[in-house]
Amino acid sequence: MRVKPDPHDPALSRPVTGLNEAGETVSLNVVTERPMTLFLNSQEVVTMMTIGDHPDLLARGYLINQNILTRDDAVEIVEVDDELGVVVVRTKEPTTFEVKSKKKVRTSGCAQGTIFSDVLEAFEDVVLPAEAKLHTSWLVPLAKTINTTSSLYLEAGAIHGCVLAKGAEPIVYFEDVGRHNAVDKVCGWMAANDVDVADKIFYTTGRLTSEMVLKTVMMGIPILISRSGFTAWGVDLARKAGLTLIGRAKGSRFLVLSGHERVVFDHESGS
Amino acid sequence: MRVKPDPHDPALSRPVTGLNEAGETVSLNVVTERPMTLFLNSQEVVTMMTIGDHPDLLARGYLINQNILTRDDAVEIVEVDDELGVVVVRTKEPTTFEVKSKKKVRTSGCAQGTIFSDVLEAFEDVVLPAEAKLHTSWLVPLAKTINTTSSLYLEAGAIHGCVLAKGAEPIVYFEDVGRHNAVDKVCGWMAANDVDVADKIFYTTGRLTSEMVLKTVMMGIPILISRSGFTAWGVDLARKAGLTLIGRAKGSRFLVLSGHERVVFDHESGS
Repeated sequence: MRVKPDPHDPALSRPVTGLNEAGETVSLNVVTERPMTLFLNSQEVVTMMTIGDHPDLLARGYLINQNILTRDDAVEIVEVDDELGVVVVRTKEPTTFEVKSKKKVRTSGCAQGTIFSDVLEAFEDVVLPAEAKLHTSWLVPLAKTINTTSSLYLEAGAIHGCVLAKGAEPIVYFEDVGRHNAVDKVCGWMAANDVDVADKIFYTTGRLTSEMVLKTVMMGIPILISRSGFTAWGVDLARKAGLTLIGRAKGSRFLVLSGHERVVFDHESGS
Repeated sequence: MRVKPDPHDPALSRPVTGLNEAGETVSLNVVTERPMTLFLNSQEVVTMMTIGDHPDLLARGYLINQNILTRDDAVEIVEVDDELGVVVVRTKEPTTFEVKSKKKVRTSGCAQGTIFSDVLEAFEDVVLPAEAKLHTSWLVPLAKTINTTSSLYLEAGAIHGCVLAKGAEPIVYFEDVGRHNAVDKVCGWMAANDVDVADKIFYTTGRLTSEMVLKTVMMGIPILISRSGFTAWGVDLARKAGLTLIGRAKGSRFLVLSGHERVVFDHESGS
């Protein structure tokens, strides 16, 4: 795995004490959440609550997923000031982003965030690669690798994970308190590493809501898998975009909700 | 219970078909998600993704929780157009809300949403009622009543619930795809029914993130309980505000993370 969680990074979690049901003082390791204010050149865009790892990828991915920057916009440098909680994305070409002028849509569920309406417009034009395939025999080993990778989820819980995979192999695995942040980190990593998405699979621990589907499609990834549930509108959007959507992937069980033409049923059927 | 989920409302869920691991076509009941655009008098505020029940309470609660309206602002009428997906809150006094001029903070986790920065400022001034008590003997019956109430969660899953309770008795129970919406519905109901919050308890199925704590404090509710985990910053905010915060309340187990002076340990200790 090229990027994996670092659950032992002291900046990402810290002990919190409480009283248990017996009235005893107990200490738990709990994920942190900190404000990070994103600037695009001289313009303030948004303040995000994040666990704080990979702020450069989070910032870049956010701007791309919000359709503020394209993957082709040349990013000169991403400056991070952990003290101030500021991250500044500087582009070669001047930008004229005006957040105030953008209509915002407040999306639902764990994939929550604010999406600018032009994302919804751009969504219409995306054509996902048709040749991509999902072998159902990949699902169990992929989930197993993800679930057994040392992570903040295993250490502290109350966090979401997003994985970019090829076949049954996770390539990168990002976590954040907000799942939308974990998605943005994957997007930022793909942009920073100029990744070809045509043969990639996106895996998330959280629910398949409209925003999750929107972002996966905007990233151009043809296959989205979750071990959790889904919303009807998320499924509708996936079908509209021709995204292969797999929900409730647990153990040897799963549901193909959209784009079954990419699915190759080659797993050993459990009894 | 004065308001409880209506899992059999055909507008809130619908069958979605998919292929299971055996390649068989299966149909599941799935929660819906629809855009609802909120206007305050003549001004557009936000578009929310919601399952669509109680749009009037959602709209009113959103405006209060975002500190755009106060609970004392006289609301003349809330007009809902389900066809257009529009809800208009009309106040007796003219409002001068300018969403464009507000700094927005993108919060984390399932409690996700956009919070305007003046909420963070107002938070500093809130003083929660000190006399409120939480008897730990209430926790098990309260959770049992909530968990056994017929709900979309039980019917379809992939949804969050928020409950306003007094003692061990749930008063209202709202659900939504986005937990922040369920919170706003509770807030809207309290405003519409002029509820005294001093002796109330807020229960949520989701994680205790900063936004969850902020909203509970802004609503003036002294006690917040979740069966899920929590973030360190959520706990910090609860301690700052003197909120009684109970996390991981499952069965007879729970953790008091903040405000233990309101907690009366009177439950029968399980072995």
